[in-house]
Amino acid sequence: MKTRAAVAFEAKKPLEIVELDLEGPKAGEVLVEIMATGICHTDAYTLDGLDSEGLFPSVLGHEGAGIIRAVGPGVTSVKQDDHVIPLYTPECRQCKSCLSGKTNLCTAIRATQGKGLMPDGTSRFSYKGETIYHYMGCSTFSNFTVLPEIAVAKIREDAPFNTSCYIGCGVTTGVGAVTNTAKVTPGSNVVVFGLGGIGLNVLQAARMVGADKIIGVDINDSKEDWGRKFGMTHFVNPTRIDDDIVSELVKLTDGGADYTFDCTGNTTVMRQALEACHRGWGVSTVIGVAEAGKEISTRPFQLVTGRVWQGSAFGGAKGRTDVPKIVDWYMNGKIEIDSMITHQLTLEEINKGFDLMHAGESIRSVVVY
Amino acid sequence: MKTRAAVAFEAKKPLEIVELDLEGPKAGEVLVEIMATGICHTDAYTLDGLDSEGLFPSVLGHEGAGIIRAVGPGVTSVKQDDHVIPLYTPECRQCKSCLSGKTNLCTAIRATQGKGLMPDGTSRFSYKGETIYHYMGCSTFSNFTVLPEIAVAKIREDAPFNTSCYIGCGVTTGVGAVTNTAKVTPGSNVVVFGLGGIGLNVLQAARMVGADKIIGVDINDSKEDWGRKFGMTHFVNPTRIDDDIVSELVKLTDGGADYTFDCTGNTTVMRQALEACHRGWGVSTVIGVAEAGKEISTRPFQLVTGRVWQGSAFGGAKGRTDVPKIVDWYMNGKIEIDSMITHQLTLEEINKGFDLMHAGESIRSVVVY
Repeated sequence: MKTRAAVAFEAKKPLEIVELDLEGPKAGEVLVEIMATGICHTDAYTLDGLDSEGLFPSVLGHEGAGIIRAVGPGVTSVKQDDHVIPLYTPECRQCKSCLSGKTNLCTAIRATQGKGLMPDGTSRFSYKGETIYHYMGCSTFSNFTVLPEIAVAKIREDAPFNTSCYIGCGVTTGVGAVTNTAKVTPGSNVVVFGLGGIGLNVLQAARMVGADKIIGVDINDSKEDWGRKFGMTHFVNPTRIDDDIVSELVKLTDGGADYTFDCTGNTTVMRQALEACHRGWGVSTVIGVAEAGKEISTRPFQLVTGRVWQGSAFGGAKGRTDVPKIVDWYMNGKIEIDSMITHQLTLEEINKGFDLMHAGESIRSVVVY
Repeated sequence: MKTRAAVAFEAKKPLEIVELDLEGPKAGEVLVEIMATGICHTDAYTLDGLDSEGLFPSVLGHEGAGIIRAVGPGVTSVKQDDHVIPLYTPECRQCKSCLSGKTNLCTAIRATQGKGLMPDGTSRFSYKGETIYHYMGCSTFSNFTVLPEIAVAKIREDAPFNTSCYIGCGVTTGVGAVTNTAKVTPGSNVVVFGLGGIGLNVLQAARMVGADKIIGVDINDSKEDWGRKFGMTHFVNPTRIDDDIVSELVKLTDGGADYTFDCTGNTTVMRQALEACHRGWGVSTVIGVAEAGKEISTRPFQLVTGRVWQGSAFGGAKGRTDVPKIVDWYMNGKIEIDSMITHQLTLEEINKGFDLMHAGESIRSVVVY
């Protein structure tokens, strides 16, 4: 079949809207009509050539929502017409990681996914006979895409595609870091470093679980209004205080935060996030992805006196199990998404979405097919 | 009253055995006759002048066991003739830390303890009219010492002093890191870096809780026999393998350890201990105390992919609650101490104990009064 797609033919070039050839689903695979897709920093990171493992030509996009239009042989967990969110972190429920019950980092198809291929080692996309690679196992910048059955989360049919697609990455990454990874408890003090899309989702999850002080930290004052909309109770701009940021936060939290989250990807900030934790029990969760080669460091005394340093990927969410729950939270009004979707674009306008992101003018731009 | 004590008059000099004046217990304090005391690396660290906060002249020693001989006004939780272990980490059960239920790092008397003084801001020790400082709130290198009521753990009377004194620091630090801090689960794979006294206690606690593979790592081959006595199932000497130590351990544990422990104080080893953890769930616990100014570092990717970096002080043990339990474990044969007490000395021989430690010839030397 044919599908309209935005193709990254090479790094550092705009995407090109073309018609691709798409092979139908093989055994264990499903064909999904993508109805909407967010544009995420990770897509830009790859398109800008910063990801040393980025493959071209490829169909980027990993934050989508759509409808299953066909299933391959042996597919049992979903069926035609099911509404789904593609999962760049699948959930096979059979590998050592899934069976451990201790992590969401399913390894079932990791090797081929990293090579831009389906689990059988081939691509379903081609253009004029040339292979086009998949991306993060999703490739949602294509109107139709093929995914392994274990890499789709079935969601309720009344969830709008143009907002719930954001649950495919940003929302789950931020909300899940609070609920799954850090397991923030009611009455806690929480500090969130970096109030981009992920940070806002951390804020609103902290509000949802009943945190007390929810402190946002950002060097951009314009983020204060955004933060307050999503539950932030205090705002600190590190460039506008006399004290260093760690001391300031320790004062604000009467000894240190119970939970801190780095949503910046800056390794200096990651250290501050750890050291702003309360002695004895503070837990710091790294969400942001750092530049290649950058390292985090601290004095081991920080750990020996009871602080915990950990990280979160895809919000610690088991895709097929937890993503439908987050869709429910959204539909039940426990979390908010609509106002974060600052721009809605057509596929033809997709490069504008990247421009808006680079200019810091969007929280989330979504392409609606 | 008078008490015989080994006094550190200044750094880098041998201790001197002298008769000190000791004031009796004030309100909330108890007088303890120390029956036996271990000599710990931390005592040597201070005596060697490496602790920038070390105070002189002082009575060192923090790993003792003894009998309460008198109590001050208002003491209710213990009485004369009770057998006790002094606690350098007290348990007041009333401060923010104790009430949190999440840490053993009681802060009730931290400020004065750090200054070598009792909670009222004075010392009980003097020599020819000159103040002698307390040390770590214990000063067990004195036949009699005074302690706050909240800084003694009442233990069973059939526990021998010359072995159970080791529970006052080393045993609890190693065993508690496994049972309280890391909460190692049955069937886990565990790696212990550094097979000194702490490391051996980590090994035997891992055995006690039912770990599967218990791997010891040390650059000294003579530690292999010691390790095997305490439950170690595999020994790796990093200087005798072709691969780097992290790869070797990942191979040995089929993907990485569930739990690792640093008992070396070496920040390079701390990093190896983190990176030898299993992706998705491995937990690395820092126990060793690093040299002043040294920092730990790693790529944040290590955390984002599911490894947890934490630390443990006094084995995460709440002194008055957990230390009596560990004494029970010892008396019931669940853990072993006797064979770790490699040297028994008189107070007059205490400097020999430091020499043995520096020469690496003791696991634990104990002074019996």
